[in-house]
Amino acid sequence: MSTTQTYHIAVIPGDGIGKEIIPVAQAALDKAAEGAAHFEYESFDLGAERYLRDGAILPDEDLERIKRTDAILLGAIGDPRIKAGILERGLLLKLRFALDQYVNLRPSKLYKGVTSPLADPGDIDFVVVREGTEGLYCGAGGAIRRDTPAEVATEVSLNTAYGVERVVRYAFELAMKRRKHVTLVHKKNVLVNAGDMWQRIVDRVGEEYPEVSHDYQHIDAATIFLVSDPSRFDVILTDNLFGDILTDEAGAVVGGVGYSASGCINASNEYPSMFEPIHGSAPDIAGKGIANPTAAILSTAMLLRHLGFEEPAVRIERAVEADIEELGSTQRSTQQVGQDILARL
Amino acid sequence: MSTTQTYHIAVIPGDGIGKEIIPVAQAALDKAAEGAAHFEYESFDLGAERYLRDGAILPDEDLERIKRTDAILLGAIGDPRIKAGILERGLLLKLRFALDQYVNLRPSKLYKGVTSPLADPGDIDFVVVREGTEGLYCGAGGAIRRDTPAEVATEVSLNTAYGVERVVRYAFELAMKRRKHVTLVHKKNVLVNAGDMWQRIVDRVGEEYPEVSHDYQHIDAATIFLVSDPSRFDVILTDNLFGDILTDEAGAVVGGVGYSASGCINASNEYPSMFEPIHGSAPDIAGKGIANPTAAILSTAMLLRHLGFEEPAVRIERAVEADIEELGSTQRSTQQVGQDILARL
Ligand SMILES: CC(C)[C@H](C(=O)O)[C@@H](O)C(=O)O
Ligand SMILES: CC(C)[C@H](C(=O)O)[C@@H](O)C(=O)O
Repeated sequence: MSTTQTYHIAVIPGDGIGKEIIPVAQAALDKAAEGAAHFEYESFDLGAERYLRDGAILPDEDLERIKRTDAILLGAIGDPRIKAGILERGLLLKLRFALDQYVNLRPSKLYKGVTSPLADPGDIDFVVVREGTEGLYCGAGGAIRRDTPAEVATEVSLNTAYGVERVVRYAFELAMKRRKHVTLVHKKNVLVNAGDMWQRIVDRVGEEYPEVSHDYQHIDAATIFLVSDPSRFDVILTDNLFGDILTDEAGAVVGGVGYSASGCINASNEYPSMFEPIHGSAPDIAGKGIANPTAAILSTAMLLRHLGFEEPAVRIERAVEADIEELGSTQRSTQQVGQDILARL
Repeated sequence: MSTTQTYHIAVIPGDGIGKEIIPVAQAALDKAAEGAAHFEYESFDLGAERYLRDGAILPDEDLERIKRTDAILLGAIGDPRIKAGILERGLLLKLRFALDQYVNLRPSKLYKGVTSPLADPGDIDFVVVREGTEGLYCGAGGAIRRDTPAEVATEVSLNTAYGVERVVRYAFELAMKRRKHVTLVHKKNVLVNAGDMWQRIVDRVGEEYPEVSHDYQHIDAATIFLVSDPSRFDVILTDNLFGDILTDEAGAVVGGVGYSASGCINASNEYPSMFEPIHGSAPDIAGKGIANPTAAILSTAMLLRHLGFEEPAVRIERAVEADIEELGSTQRSTQQVGQDILARL
């Protein structure tokens, strides 16, 4: 007789297509975990509509309830009616920071059946390990004399040995399970303070992993290689902003961010980790039932792996791979893609 | 009888392939300007070898002499023997800042005869207007407790209405001579202080150019469109760091940075402007005589245009275009490419 543990999952469908893809992802999660784990979902009404209705972005009470869950499944945040930055900083980034999700893990894989925009993409399969709680994302900037000709605006990137070392270790551990190569991406020829610290910590931690080779690329050069030779990468290790940029470019290179999942991970498990597709809320296609739920479904595989369920995670990934290979080029509704993938689980 | 004015050009061949391509570029410049302008060159021994020899990076005396020239032709700076940042910040960025080169102009064009790594690149022809004297390039960061577990390193992005407005105006003026569309690229949903200022200034200046349409993209989204739909862009307007990143990615998309020229322009003409290929010193192929001088030659066209010689500038561009279309895919030495292009002038 098998025992099935129950996990408490916070669900934040969010905005636009987030609302359409998340139920499909939940169905896949339930089916894949059958017999191994049971999920109880608590849905949070957060995002643009809530904000427009009552001004709330992330009430303390909600944050406290979210903190007590085992993991978070998030759809997408963002709405053209709301000034840029309000929901991003008040909800999405607030969660990443409050829950100390210091590893933003973003795999990029070119699936068979997907057409890359590159003429000769090669075999693309790498993971970006993006720092999630430091850098230019801290909100440490300011402005004076706003809206006058003498205005000055600053943005401050905060970087600590504490914060960098833990994500560097994560990257080397991950490389050990993969092709054993880490590429640090930064701009150390200009951002000499932060870049030098990142490089020193990578060199020092790297010594503890003699089997893992590591090299360095400037962010500008890395954007070239992502287009000219993406199969060279195994684990890309980088800061918060460079990781944001590289993972979107990587998404494009593997045929669209519609296939790219991500995890915002608190690797010390003090707080729940959060899993989300890297695409946005896509207001242009929202409500039409045509959003592709694949990235959201792949996010549930990352969630399962994080909770220790490797086998169901692999099952989801295989089902998605098979689905894309066979049907990836056909026009299907959100529901249909969900059903097709579920049928393979 | 025609009068030929003499211009005084500072030449900084720099490191690696810089030394090989610059003489070829000078020959093209002389030939194209024949009858219209005469160039007197003053060569500056600056770069890695000078630094390794006597520790000098950019002596005040050299800077003063450079300030009195009409324009600067630069090869490439960078050498693996020297710690990242020393030459970049002490020489290249020092010149850009000391000479207040606030417009870093970087055209991207897919030439006939060049193979883009994209399967379906379309008709790529845009210009990036990158701010050159502000942002994260000011060197305003610092570090405490270096090399201890309690180290903190900062990088500060400084942005002023003064600095942003002048480059925004330049972009709109440029758009008037082109397809009349400006795309502001920033990350205003996270970098809310600087991003909001950029957007406000673009909106305000944009009102003075009713014929020019403008839109906005986050930097992460822009890296996607550069791969998925690069022909949508006309003038991309962005800050110092985002411009660095986008122009390298753009270089890759148009078939390699070997075809990409740039100008660091003081558009108020208080100080000389500087023209350089966007590629680096390429130590791996330096000394072999195989570096492609095309980007350096295209930089001289930008130099000519800046000094008011539109017709010779166009002549160089046409010669380069014809050369690439006919011979771009053949293996040629640096000298040979130079001769082939010169023969068309
Ligand atoms: C929405 C935005 C704040 C966010 C980021 O910049 O991290 C997004 O682009 C992402 O990559 O998850
Ligand atoms: C060498 C480096 C400082 C420079 C920059 O970042 O501006 C280079 O990448 C460039 O784009 O000209």
